[in-house]
Parts: sequence; C-alpha cells; structure tokens
Amino acid sequence: MSEQARKSDIDSNGEIIISLDAMGGDNAPDIVIKGAELAYRSLENIKFRIFGNKKKIMPIMAKYEALSNISKIIHTEEFISADEKPSSALRRGRNSSMYMAIDSVNNNEAHAIISAGNTGALMAISKFVLRTLPGIDRPAIGGLLPTEKGYCVMLDLGANIHCDAENLFEFAVMGNAFARSVLGLARPTVGLLNVGTEKNKGHETLRLAATLIEESGIDINFYGFIEGSDINAGTADVIVADGFTGNVALKTAEGTARFFVNTAKKSMLSSPFGILGMAIAYPAINKIKKRLDPRNYNGAMLLGLNGIVVKSHGGTDEIGFANAIKVTYKLAKNHINQQIIKEMVSSGHVPAEGDDADIDIE
Amino acid sequence: MSEQARKSDIDSNGEIIISLDAMGGDNAPDIVIKGAELAYRSLENIKFRIFGNKKKIMPIMAKYEALSNISKIIHTEEFISADEKPSSALRRGRNSSMYMAIDSVNNNEAHAIISAGNTGALMAISKFVLRTLPGIDRPAIGGLLPTEKGYCVMLDLGANIHCDAENLFEFAVMGNAFARSVLGLARPTVGLLNVGTEKNKGHETLRLAATLIEESGIDINFYGFIEGSDINAGTADVIVADGFTGNVALKTAEGTARFFVNTAKKSMLSSPFGILGMAIAYPAINKIKKRLDPRNYNGAMLLGLNGIVVKSHGGTDEIGFANAIKVTYKLAKNHINQQIIKEMVSSGHVPAEGDDADIDIE
Repeated sequence: MSEQARKSDIDSNGEIIISLDAMGGDNAPDIVIKGAELAYRSLENIKFRIFGNKKKIMPIMAKYEALSNISKIIHTEEFISADEKPSSALRRGRNSSMYMAIDSVNNNEAHAIISAGNTGALMAISKFVLRTLPGIDRPAIGGLLPTEKGYCVMLDLGANIHCDAENLFEFAVMGNAFARSVLGLARPTVGLLNVGTEKNKGHETLRLAATLIEESGIDINFYGFIEGSDINAGTADVIVADGFTGNVALKTAEGTARFFVNTAKKSMLSSPFGILGMAIAYPAINKIKKRLDPRNYNGAMLLGLNGIVVKSHGGTDEIGFANAIKVTYKLAKNHINQQIIKEMVSSGHVPAEGDDADIDIE
Repeated sequence: MSEQARKSDIDSNGEIIISLDAMGGDNAPDIVIKGAELAYRSLENIKFRIFGNKKKIMPIMAKYEALSNISKIIHTEEFISADEKPSSALRRGRNSSMYMAIDSVNNNEAHAIISAGNTGALMAISKFVLRTLPGIDRPAIGGLLPTEKGYCVMLDLGANIHCDAENLFEFAVMGNAFARSVLGLARPTVGLLNVGTEKNKGHETLRLAATLIEESGIDINFYGFIEGSDINAGTADVIVADGFTGNVALKTAEGTARFFVNTAKKSMLSSPFGILGMAIAYPAINKIKKRLDPRNYNGAMLLGLNGIVVKSHGGTDEIGFANAIKVTYKLAKNHINQQIIKEMVSSGHVPAEGDDADIDIE
C-alpha cells in the first residue's frame, strides 16, 4: 500500500495517531506512559495506540485519566529484548509489542510508531513490514544534534556501513525533509561531511554525491562539503554522511561532551571556590545543562521507510520520551514521507527496491 | 641512508639536535623562536638548527643570549606559503626554510624537524627527501588528544583517505611506538575505531586489521574495537583509524569542545550571578582551561618516515610551539623510529616502498 493511500485514509478527521511500543527501552513501560502524559497536552488532536503488557501498563495509566481517554491499549505479553539479534526478532517477534506497533502503521491504524527498544530489530522489522519508499534504496537513521545556532539534522547515524553516491543523494533528500518537518526551516542548508571544504577533497563517492545533489534539479539548498568541526558549529542544517562516518562523528561528539562535563565538574568540585562559584552561578549552569540536555533532542527517525518510524534513546526518561513524541508528531503533521516522495519523483531518480542494512547505532 | 646509520652518526655526544622551520605558521618566526626559548631549559643537551630569514629571526633572537648559544641559524629568504599546493612546494621549494630543515635530517645534521607550516607540503617534501621506513607503506599523521585519564594518541589524522588492513596494522605499530615514546607508557592499549565493539562490527577492512594485529606476534596490547565515545573517555591509549575517519573524529571533537566552551561562556555571561560565580570559581575554571588547552598537546608526528618530522598547529602561539618541541625531543630521545623498525621486522611484514598520500589535515 502506498504512502499516499495510507495518509488520506487516516487523515480525514485531522487526528494524528501515534503507536507506542510500550515495552522498549531500559525503563519501559514507565517512561513510555509518563512520556505520553507529558507530551499530549501540547499536541492538538493526538491519539495513542499503546502496545504492550496490560498488567504492567494499566497501573501506570490508572493515574492519567485524560491520557487514558485518548489512548487505546493493545495487549501482548511478548516483547523484543535489547540484545536480541534483528534476524531472530524478525523471525519470532510477530506478536511482540514492537512488531505489532509497526504493523499498526502498515494497517493504517496509526500515522507513526515510536520505540525506545532494540534499534537493529526496529529497523529489520520496519523494513520487512513497511518496505522502503519509492526511489529509496536504503533507509537511514536521522537525528537531531545541538549547534551554536539551534539544532541540526545528521544522517546516516549507523544504518549503512557502506554507501554509494546515490545513497548519499537519497540521504540528502530525506534529511532535507526531516529538517523542514521538525525544525520548521523552509530551505535548510545541506552539507556533505568530508575532510575539507574544497571540491577536490575526500572520496570519489563524496564528489559524485555532490554532483548528484547539485544537478538533481530539486529544491535543495546545497552548502557543499563541511568538516567535523562544522557539526556543532551549525554551519549546515542537514549533515549527510555514510553510516560509518555518521556513527563515529555522533559518538565522538557525545563522548567529547561527556568529557567536558566531567572535567568541568571535577575541577569545580575540587576547590571550595569552585563549589561556591557553582552555587552562585547555578541558574546560569542550569541554562547550559538544559541547552545541552540530550533529552531535548531525543527522537531519531528511520528515514526512507513507507511509514514514520521513530527511535527513542533506550536509556532516556519520560522527558526524553515526550520529546520523541513531539518530534514524531511534527513528522506526521508535516507529511515528511510525502515530501520525500515528491522530491524523489521530481529528481527523476528511478525507484529501486530496498536492500539489507547493518545496524550499528547504540 | 638507513635510520640506524642516521642515529649513530649524531648520537655520539648525547645531544638532541632539532631543526626548526622558522618561517612556517601564522605567527612565524615569532612563535618559533619564542617557543624554543620557552622549551629549551627543561630539555637536557638540546640544540637547535633554525632555518629562515635572518633579517626576521635575528631581531627576536637578540633578546635570548643563551638560546643563541645553542642555536645555529641557516639563512634562506624562501619559504612555503600556507596555501601552496604540495606538488608546487616540492617542485620549486628546494631553497625554502621547510625543505632545508627537512634536508638537515636527511644529512644527519639533526635528529628531527618541526614545522608549523603547510601540512601537505611538509608531508610531500618529507616523503620525497626522507622516504618511508622499511615495511611502512604509507606515512600517517599521529597526534595527542586529552582524555579522562590523561592523553591518547590518534592516527591517521588525515594523510590517507583510503586505507587497507595492512595500512591500519602499520598505524597500530607506529601509534604504539608514539605512545611509548611521548606518553611514557610501557604497554599502551591499542584500539581500532569502529561503530561498535563487537567483533562482527564495521568494515571488512577493520576486521582484517584486527586479525593482522592479533596474529602479528609483536608486543602490542590490543584492546579491540572502540567507538567514537571512547576517544575522550581514554578507553585506549592509541586510537587507530583510516585518515578519513580519524580526521572527521578529530575535527568533530574539536568542534564539540568549542561549542561547549562557547555555550558555557554565553550562558554564564548572560546573568550577573553567572559572572559573579565565574569570578569566584576563577581558579577552578583556570584549571579546566589548562587541562583542555590545545596548546598543551600540540605536536603531531608524520609517522612512518625515515626521520622524525613533527607538525605544529599553524595557529598556535609560543606555548604551543614549545610543547611541540618537547614532544619532538621525546620522540628523538626514545628513538621512536628504531622501535617501529624493530616491531616491523619482528612481525615479519615485508618492507614496501612508500606510496602517495592525500593530505587533508587542517
């Protein structure tokens, strides 16, 4: 069933229905339900379909009457564990909360699905159930990162270890639609991650991808090549990389951030002046913490599938999960997949069948 | 002329002679001379050969009598500019300060050479003049990064865009010798940068490189695969990557560090409590600054050449240049290239002639 048909079927009454895998993530189903409770009030016409073990979900839901009224709980006792192999999850997981939640998108019972569970399983089942969008060869994982100017979108964060120029072109189209939908930018700038900004830098694949984007005739505000230091600087709104490079860059940025926080803490706490200074500067420090809090940009999309699938960080709390719901809502509301299809058609890139991806995020 | 012959010729009186390209870098020759003045007192039996324009060098040297006594200035009016192409530098640069300084190592007039100039030109001329060490196919750029535990060595930082498993094996051997020489570690741990820690993760090239290292029979404390988040965490003492990945990771870490400092500053300065807190915590903040100051780990080595060539950051000041001198001194004192040759011989890897490298650092 095509994305077009899918949307029109369930958009009739203006509702956005989001399916939640209540059993995925380190603190499921607690953070899933509490996250939904935190998120729904600011999101117009939202409804939830919650998949998981009723015995575990109901005691939490009992506290939230209004949330219960806009949610439908679909019971299943099975779930995909964090360390289950994608192939095994796909084979034996048909009655799991994750699989059933994904299936609800395929059955037009929901616009989108969120899971904080096993990324590899989520990608494998989603690809099997939903298939890829016309013209998209390989799905990619796209997420948000904080920058000097706000946020940027980076993809692929680890779904595809090997990528050719055509894949990178498709990532550019998908990242562009993601930034428009979630960041509300009319014409986001798109950069290709490389080792230098000059045209002759890097792999042949990157130079070819740049040409594909430049000559595609579609509405992409192409910035050109960018470097690792441009990611957090906010030089481009969308950062395109193969899944190997994107994953290394994402984790390096996370690691450097952690190192800074730890070093700062250690130094400040090692002297009474540091402690006093921190106490006085507390409101300002709080502002920094909030600005850099990964919960505030939780919610990565499995882009390129014929349905909206969002991955929440497995270790997040209800605030992080609520943000993943907000991201998902924007993706559905702004019809991200329609945008991608439109660009792919207008670029004249021929539809191709999806291929297997190695999952290497988290 | 072999490295063995080179060392014995000039080691006789226990001196370490370092050649300085006085004309390389944004603030040359000022920072070069002042850096030498800062460094030499803590380094036993050090002597300098300083290559560059006497008219510019002498007015600065005039202030430093003791430094003048241990330095020999070799005059040349030519230099390699920052934006000159490596091929052009190689062709027309024979009388440049950089070329002459490198040549002094080849002529056994010095143990090592430092330049803060054009990285591409430095690599091209060094490869042409010094050639690669026996068994080393491609030179790599290795540098220091701060970690939770101290410092780590990372290579390749951008000399080789495409690397095979054999190249990565050689990088592991060279990084190991670098960490021993500069960090003073007896058995540094060596990690291969990947998208996950499990054995089946990433490229085939990485898995092959892991096998080569494990089965080499040489004395390497191999940690296995590490991820981007492990770099600053200090999980491994030596981080091995191809030049593309290493360059992206290095610049991402630098960018994230800059982003943190800027965000913290902006937030602190935006409120009077923040400013007051910072003033009180100043000694602690100073400690953080010092810990993370890139000048403190300035000095990347062009590893794998038949001679010690160190690249200082082009934009550094005299403190940074002094640190590059200290790094170079340790590399020469600990005979890093002898260590590399010994390991390559004992691993049974057959000597191969050097190949062209694309330079993409800075």
